[in-house]
Amino acid sequence: MLESKDMNESHQERMEKIVSLCKRRGFIFPSSEIYGGFSGVYDYGHYGTLLLNNVKAAWQKSVAQERMDVVLLDSAIFMHPTTWKASGHIDGFNDPQVDCRKCKSRFRADHMLEEFGINADKQPLDWINTELDKLREEKKLVCANCKSADLTEAKVFSLMVKSNLGSPTDALTEDNVVYLRPETCGGIYLEYKNTVDSLHPKLPFGIAQIGKAFRNEIVAKQFVFRTREFEQMEMQYFHHQSQTNNIFEQWHNYRWAFYLDYGIPESKLNWHKHDKLAHYASDAYDIEYNYAMLGGFKELEGVHARGDWDLSQHSKFSGQDLSYFDEATKERFTPHIVETSVGVARMTLAFLDNAYTEEEVGEVDVTGKKDTRVVLKLDKRLAPVKVAVLPLSKKEELSVPAQALWKKLSKKMFVEYDDTQSIGKRYRRQDEIGTPYCVTVDFDTLTDNAVTVRDRDTMQQERINLDNLEAYLVEKLG
Amino acid sequence: MLESKDMNESHQERMEKIVSLCKRRGFIFPSSEIYGGFSGVYDYGHYGTLLLNNVKAAWQKSVAQERMDVVLLDSAIFMHPTTWKASGHIDGFNDPQVDCRKCKSRFRADHMLEEFGINADKQPLDWINTELDKLREEKKLVCANCKSADLTEAKVFSLMVKSNLGSPTDALTEDNVVYLRPETCGGIYLEYKNTVDSLHPKLPFGIAQIGKAFRNEIVAKQFVFRTREFEQMEMQYFHHQSQTNNIFEQWHNYRWAFYLDYGIPESKLNWHKHDKLAHYASDAYDIEYNYAMLGGFKELEGVHARGDWDLSQHSKFSGQDLSYFDEATKERFTPHIVETSVGVARMTLAFLDNAYTEEEVGEVDVTGKKDTRVVLKLDKRLAPVKVAVLPLSKKEELSVPAQALWKKLSKKMFVEYDDTQSIGKRYRRQDEIGTPYCVTVDFDTLTDNAVTVRDRDTMQQERINLDNLEAYLVEKLG
Repeated sequence: MLESKDMNESHQERMEKIVSLCKRRGFIFPSSEIYGGFSGVYDYGHYGTLLLNNVKAAWQKSVAQERMDVVLLDSAIFMHPTTWKASGHIDGFNDPQVDCRKCKSRFRADHMLEEFGINADKQPLDWINTELDKLREEKKLVCANCKSADLTEAKVFSLMVKSNLGSPTDALTEDNVVYLRPETCGGIYLEYKNTVDSLHPKLPFGIAQIGKAFRNEIVAKQFVFRTREFEQMEMQYFHHQSQTNNIFEQWHNYRWAFYLDYGIPESKLNWHKHDKLAHYASDAYDIEYNYAMLGGFKELEGVHARGDWDLSQHSKFSGQDLSYFDEATKERFTPHIVETSVGVARMTLAFLDNAYTEEEVGEVDVTGKKDTRVVLKLDKRLAPVKVAVLPLSKKEELSVPAQALWKKLSKKMFVEYDDTQSIGKRYRRQDEIGTPYCVTVDFDTLTDNAVTVRDRDTMQQERINLDNLEAYLVEKLG
Repeated sequence: MLESKDMNESHQERMEKIVSLCKRRGFIFPSSEIYGGFSGVYDYGHYGTLLLNNVKAAWQKSVAQERMDVVLLDSAIFMHPTTWKASGHIDGFNDPQVDCRKCKSRFRADHMLEEFGINADKQPLDWINTELDKLREEKKLVCANCKSADLTEAKVFSLMVKSNLGSPTDALTEDNVVYLRPETCGGIYLEYKNTVDSLHPKLPFGIAQIGKAFRNEIVAKQFVFRTREFEQMEMQYFHHQSQTNNIFEQWHNYRWAFYLDYGIPESKLNWHKHDKLAHYASDAYDIEYNYAMLGGFKELEGVHARGDWDLSQHSKFSGQDLSYFDEATKERFTPHIVETSVGVARMTLAFLDNAYTEEEVGEVDVTGKKDTRVVLKLDKRLAPVKVAVLPLSKKEELSVPAQALWKKLSKKMFVEYDDTQSIGKRYRRQDEIGTPYCVTVDFDTLTDNAVTVRDRDTMQQERINLDNLEAYLVEKLG
């Protein structure tokens, strides 16, 4: 009965469809659109907000609530500026940029080289410019936008976003500049000591947090995949060096299992081992997801062994003792760290990409053609709205009990109420936003005290007594 | 049996006790402490994060989930800079500052005048300096820190926080400066059109959002009451002008009822009507809470009628039509707005202040003295941890079933596991973080399949069969 129509579409087509659905149905809007837009930033509408909330709740439940060995933190976006000297971000968090002198487009030089199959990952600027020059001589290097060959050489620009918080004066100088964090883990390192002093956790243990971070990306593109303002979910797991291999493997498996649990098929996931490690890292893998809308596998989540770099550096720059004393072994040492790190939008986009489905349905429409439906087959725990209450008519006979039902269910979950147009159209609207259950209140309800419950994925309908409905839904929604 | 010890303490004492508890037990840490601190910003530890999450969830449930007429939004911190020209923030969002030339302390000039009973609210700078000069002549004006009379005249400083997001160059100029939002409602006005176009809500309806905002406060003080980085919960309710009075009263009552529902006694709440309204406002009230730790009533939440100022201004500056067409009356008009606005930290601080209790308990300790307990009597829905599982011994006989119980309950809620020190000490630890229920697994559990459940507030204990425990707790926790 259900036939997938997705097979032959190009990834650009799929991208356009999903971006369009996101805007049309109130998931994701381009920022500041009435003022002509603000690049590299997105706003989340009603359903997008609910979806993000559910994605974050799923992560927090898995990484903290269900683990005796992980605690939470919610540290501020702003930190003491020395934080980013210690971490190496002020000196080293740069990207190489090439400008088109003709159309003023900006490009990442490493991405330009990648187009020619040249891997510039972690290469110095000189090396990059030498490679660009070779392409220039071969007349291969042109602006991707206007095709002009009049491109600048590569220069490095800091990704760090600056601010005058705390200094309400006009000029930003080296003395008063503060930074918006480029990643949330910095806050975890700074609060490692307070966490240990207040909660007295025994090693190994983790600190997890969700929060916004900011990067002056040269090119923000691919919808919400890479944005200048974004939200991260990071967990830093502190342990003795001798445990690194075991712990790395445990988190490796634990995070992989998370995606399977939330409905991503294993065939769409891939482990990518980093060839070049940061100088402090002992091992680094990314979980890649095959974004059909982006045309292939892209980094989704990082699982990295960071050694004792972070606490050592912050101890050195702050002069504070960040070592741990193990009562059992009487050993004092600086804990090593395994981190897991994923962007909220990137994870949400993976779930959206995986959920977006077009199906030819067996139902024949008024014109005699087979009907098509768009349905977001999100895991029910992630679905923005759990239930839609649909009275068959706007008459008071039905609206009174339907609204009473809405009110009762709304104490437990987000519930939609829709009494406009035909039931078929209302089902389609709920399919498009991924609502797992539609509950129709009809005239029989007035005599049999029951409603029709329609399942999003199977489109099967079941008659359920109103007295059992809440328990039925709670059980089905998991 | 229970006797309150709070009666005669000064508010400074209470402040110190609560700030100390927050740090000692992992609720709230000063930011960047290992680097000497970062003023006006705080980090939230494990229990603080959970408490904030629950406060935000309570607001969202009340303001959006349980209301058919309110939708959500999660708009970005960064917006097009014209947003803040239209809103009047760039020209008018200033505070008057006085500096001490001797010790370099900074003061809000209006707060200095307030100390002398002079209300400088919304007064121009000239007026403020005239009043300061009078005090100067009377030799009454000295630095609150070092008592020097060598103070500057008042100057205005913008509260807007600047950034170079999108312009990764060194200099911040008028051309490339962007702002961190000083309030979240700006995002709601910018996404009003996309919300209407995607969700088709009928007036009246509201858009609610939770998010961070930033202000270059001259003086950040009173713990988390006034900080430079903070989180807001704002709801903008769009309606026809003729409905303003009714709607204003409805939200007035609705928000007041929220605090009563979450355990704030009516005697600690107060309505403060603004004497001086912003030029666009038709009515403005604040809900004030009597913060015992701050020595009196302070603004908690604003409920303001903003007229059609916001949408009119953004329509004028963007050239976009932000009017609404009413199908029923065939009238086209710019919606008026009633807003409710509250800070997450300010609300959390009210709940903490209200919950913090010291009690002499009837139990006599080993030295023969009556014992005192500190208990956070938070509403159970707000409590960071819902249940603590406490095995009476560390022996495997008890740890195996206790950990199995922890694991089962942790699928539903945040549960603590504690097997260190005496049961009495463990109860006190849970009281201090406001855990509603302690569940003791003892040797009898192995034969009667039951556990002892102790209630935080009454300290009464009940023996509950393990088969019924989850249902018992879920029902009690609401």
